[in-house]
Formats: sequence, C-alpha cells, structure tokens
Amino acid sequence: MQAMLFDGALRAVSNYPQPALVPGEAIIRPHLVGVCNTDIEITRGYMGFHGVLGHEFVGSVVQCDDAAWLGRRVVGEINAACGSCATCLRGDAPHCPQRTTLGIDRRDGAMADLFSLPTSCLHLVPERIPDAAAVFAEPLAAAVEILEQSHLRPTERVAVVGDGKLGLLIAQVLRLPGCDVTLVGRHPERWALLNDLGVATLHADDVGAAGASSFVVHRSSFDVVVDCTGQPGGLDLARRLVRPRGRLVLKSTFQGSANINLSMIVVDEIQIVGSRCGPFDAALRLLERRLVETEPLIAATYQLGEGLEAFAAAPGKLKVLLAP
Amino acid sequence: MQAMLFDGALRAVSNYPQPALVPGEAIIRPHLVGVCNTDIEITRGYMGFHGVLGHEFVGSVVQCDDAAWLGRRVVGEINAACGSCATCLRGDAPHCPQRTTLGIDRRDGAMADLFSLPTSCLHLVPERIPDAAAVFAEPLAAAVEILEQSHLRPTERVAVVGDGKLGLLIAQVLRLPGCDVTLVGRHPERWALLNDLGVATLHADDVGAAGASSFVVHRSSFDVVVDCTGQPGGLDLARRLVRPRGRLVLKSTFQGSANINLSMIVVDEIQIVGSRCGPFDAALRLLERRLVETEPLIAATYQLGEGLEAFAAAPGKLKVLLAP
Repeated sequence: MQAMLFDGALRAVSNYPQPALVPGEAIIRPHLVGVCNTDIEITRGYMGFHGVLGHEFVGSVVQCDDAAWLGRRVVGEINAACGSCATCLRGDAPHCPQRTTLGIDRRDGAMADLFSLPTSCLHLVPERIPDAAAVFAEPLAAAVEILEQSHLRPTERVAVVGDGKLGLLIAQVLRLPGCDVTLVGRHPERWALLNDLGVATLHADDVGAAGASSFVVHRSSFDVVVDCTGQPGGLDLARRLVRPRGRLVLKSTFQGSANINLSMIVVDEIQIVGSRCGPFDAALRLLERRLVETEPLIAATYQLGEGLEAFAAAPGKLKVLLAP
Repeated sequence: MQAMLFDGALRAVSNYPQPALVPGEAIIRPHLVGVCNTDIEITRGYMGFHGVLGHEFVGSVVQCDDAAWLGRRVVGEINAACGSCATCLRGDAPHCPQRTTLGIDRRDGAMADLFSLPTSCLHLVPERIPDAAAVFAEPLAAAVEILEQSHLRPTERVAVVGDGKLGLLIAQVLRLPGCDVTLVGRHPERWALLNDLGVATLHADDVGAAGASSFVVHRSSFDVVVDCTGQPGGLDLARRLVRPRGRLVLKSTFQGSANINLSMIVVDEIQIVGSRCGPFDAALRLLERRLVETEPLIAATYQLGEGLEAFAAAPGKLKVLLAP
C-alpha cells in the first residue's frame, strides 16, 4: 500500500505492507490526514521515530473484531496505552510509560492507505461534522487541553504567541469562556478570521524588548500566555508578556532544548504548564456546535501519492491535508 | 558604622554612613543576620546589586515615627513595595514592579550596625521564639510559600532536591501535612535530623540517569519535586524524579541561565512553579509551635567585623550567622 515513511529520510512508498488486524484494534482507512508541525520536527530527528507518519486523521473502520465499529466514521486519540500499569490505573492513560503513539513513537501513523489503532482510542464522528472539520479533532483537543488542565477565568487577559495552525485554534478556544484574548504573531494575513471572532492581534515585533518603555503596556500585562510558536525562541517572547504570578502554557515541541533564565521564573513566581494531547469528546462537541472555525485554516489538500510535495509545501503554511 | 558591602568586591567597612529615618520606615539594630546563598550569588553578579548585603535578620527597632514600634523585636519581609500600583492594589506587593528589596535590589541590607525598612514589612517576634530561631523566619517563610502557592495533598509523594539550609527547612515544612517526603542530597552527615523527623533520605548519585533501569523505582515516581539545589544542574535531577503531570517547584536563584528540554515538559505535561518569598506570619507560627527545628541548622556565628571570614566559610556549609 501507499505510505509516507520516515526512516532517516522522508519517502513516499507504494509497497508498504498492510497492517494486520490485532485483537482490540481496528484497521482504519483514512479520509483525510493533517500534516502537523510535529511531523516536520520528526523529519528533523524529534522523538527518533522511524515509521509511517501522521497522527491527525478522520477515517472509516474497515476491519475490526467488534462489528459495532465496522464502517463507522472515526477520529482517534493518538496514545495507545497498556491499560494496566499504575499510570493507566490512576486514569492517566495518555502518559502510560508503555504507550505507543500514532506516527510519533513505535506505532505506524495514518499517512497510508490503511493503519491500525486500538478501539479504545476511537471516537465516533457526529454526522454534522464534515471530514474537513473532523480532521482537526486532534489539534483542537490539544487546544482544549489548556482549559482541562487549569482554571481559566473569564476575566483573565490571555496572549496566544504563535499564529500557526495550533495558535489559531487555541485563540479560538480560549475566547470561548469570555476572556480578553490577544494573538501575537508574524502573519497579519491570517488575522482577519480571528479579529472577526473578537480576538485582538499584535505583531511580535511590537512586543517590547526588556527595558523598552514604549511597549510597557504589552509587557508583563497578561495573566495567561500560551507559547505555540513551535520554536525555541517562543518561550522568551511569552515570558516577556506574562505578569508576575501569571501562567505560561507550553505547547511547542521541537527537536533540541531551549535556554531559559530560571531565576526570573523563581523571582516572578511564574507557573509554567506543559500541555499536550487533550479531550476528543469536548473537541468534537465544539466542532458539532460550530464554535470553532476550521475551514479557513486549510491551506491545501494533496493526494497521498503527492506526500513529498505536501511536506515540502507545509512549513510556514496553514494546515496541509493529505487525502489517501 | 560597620557594614558588609558589595560594590564589585566584597568588603567589610567600618565607616559606612548610618541610615537616615524615612517617613513610614523604621531604623533597626540587627541582633543576628543570616548569610544566604543569594548573598553569595550576589557577590558573583546576581541581580547586579551594589550595596550592603543581608536580608535574613532579627533585630530591634531603635528609631521610628510610630512610637508603638520602638524597642520591639522584629523580623521583616524583604520587599519594600510602592503600595499604590496595579500590582500592589491586587494584593501582590511582593511583585510590585517599583519595589526595592533588602540587600538584593536598590536597598541596603541588614549586615550593618543599623538599617532601615518600612514598618509595613515588619512582624513582631513572639517572646517564645529566641533570636537564633527568629533569624530563620525569612527562609522559613520561603519554604511555607510552597504550601501557599498550591495544594499539597497529604497523600502525595514529595522529593526535596538539595540538602542545604533551604532544603532542610523545606523538607521539614512539607512533612507537616502528612506527605511522604524524601530529601535528595549529597551531604549524608546532615540527614540524621531529617530522618528523626520522619523524612526519608536518598543520595543524589543513587537517582538513576535516564535509562538506568535499576533505579526505576525512584525515577518519575514523585508527585511533587522541589529544586532547592541553588545550581543550574538541580532542575535536571528534579526533572528525572517527577512523574508525568507532576509538579516541579523551583526555589533556586543563581547568576546565569540553565538549559532545559522544554519538549519533555510539554510531552509529560509537567507543571513548573517558580517560588520565592513567603508568608512571615505562618512562618512565625511554625517557629512558635516548634514544628520546625532550626538550631541544628546553624553552622557558625561570626561577629559583623569578621564578615569576610563568614563569607569565606559559608559556601557548602549550613547556616552561617553574623552578630552585629
């Protein structure tokens, strides 16, 4: 079958072996698969993953021991947990130390004609949600995770740093409780949608460097700041925006590490919250209620056989989709 | 008057000008002043401070417009806030952007015959607390700040990394709610006190490196881990001890920055909490109730005129005190 494979080099192959049906799992034929920044980071060495890429999908179950799943349209959580360790038993399967992760860690991903995932990871897609919206369930769940992890007060001032795909989803989600939300980015051509939805926008160059008094209105004035730039420098910008005792939410994963002045985190008693995968059920409810716009986030759709072109086009773009 | 001055070099001077009485402030004659790691970091360039050192003290008010303070024995909060800015008005004076900080930032400290502090920073010392215990009010308040910032469940497993002065105070405080507390350090000769108080101890070398399976029982097994090593490498050790979705409390301030793999903070959804100064009233209650032992933490007491010897002796020691 066709597949987008990374084995040290990114390759579009047409002779990849089909997955075998495993008890408790389902074989899925993807309708659409999203290219995520994490996929691009993997091709730079992140996670040391070799295998089929792809973890954002909507598809149909074509094979499963449990007939109730056959033919159903699904999206899926990406962490396949053991279900029996201490971490799983305290209800934290996404952090199971034995987990495999779809297209990221020891489990072939969705950029193929077929792939396999445990049925415990699957969520039925309500009919009202089209494929082109459902394929955003995974990154949207990651955005909703911020609300799941801690209390966001409707009266808080929030800055979302990074106007990529995830940033545009996060800004939309964090506006929902009524917060004053500002998107900070470098792509003004993407901001109209957010402005229409009541989100303020600010160019990253207009955030003052430390000591630049003319920008003092922006610096240290946000209660909550989310870094979703996907880049090591994002945290420094986010750090300058957050107030003492404020909260920094980290969404960026990338190859390598970043330098951070930890003493300033201590002196200002900043809280940093790492944030990753989130609740699919809530994300699907937001899509079904049309509280989040996804269509304007799609930059292009490629056939699976054009996967190399898709990956070449994806960096710096909004969402690039593959249609296997 | 005598003073321990840092003006690019550490100097013991005997001709420093006496402080003038300022409205709203009190002139204090210190009985004892503690040498803190922060003082040593300042002599390495931390905070860029030039002036009289010292921010841990117990002393007597010798001059004040408000006669009620005269002759009273006091300890004091170290942040002198403006009282009128937005940060102060939301009740967060310790983070006032206009604040000066005793012996740390634009305010002469307590290692002198006399020094000045706003009366709003002062706390009366209950008679039952001797000077040698009261001088620990400031670092003990910093330890209590961990309980003030977020909920520590009595059922949580806690590791305190660093068996210096602050680590020994923090381990004592965090044992109070009933938690299972382990002190991780490199000075077994200091552990008897903690063991007697029901705190487990572990040598830092016995915490496995990533991938060292024989140590897997310690790695990633703590709900809350406090880094109070005062060193850039402390965070990495703390990071290896904390479980996914656990909490890392940062207490270390030092000159320079540290490298941290932020992606792992995101993947494991770790919460990092910077933690600094804390509530003096609670710290004084703990001292008065004798719930925290301080006497075994005193390594040596020097006269103020022997300040250079005290600073030379302090690194790697438990608490060194100066008696002006």
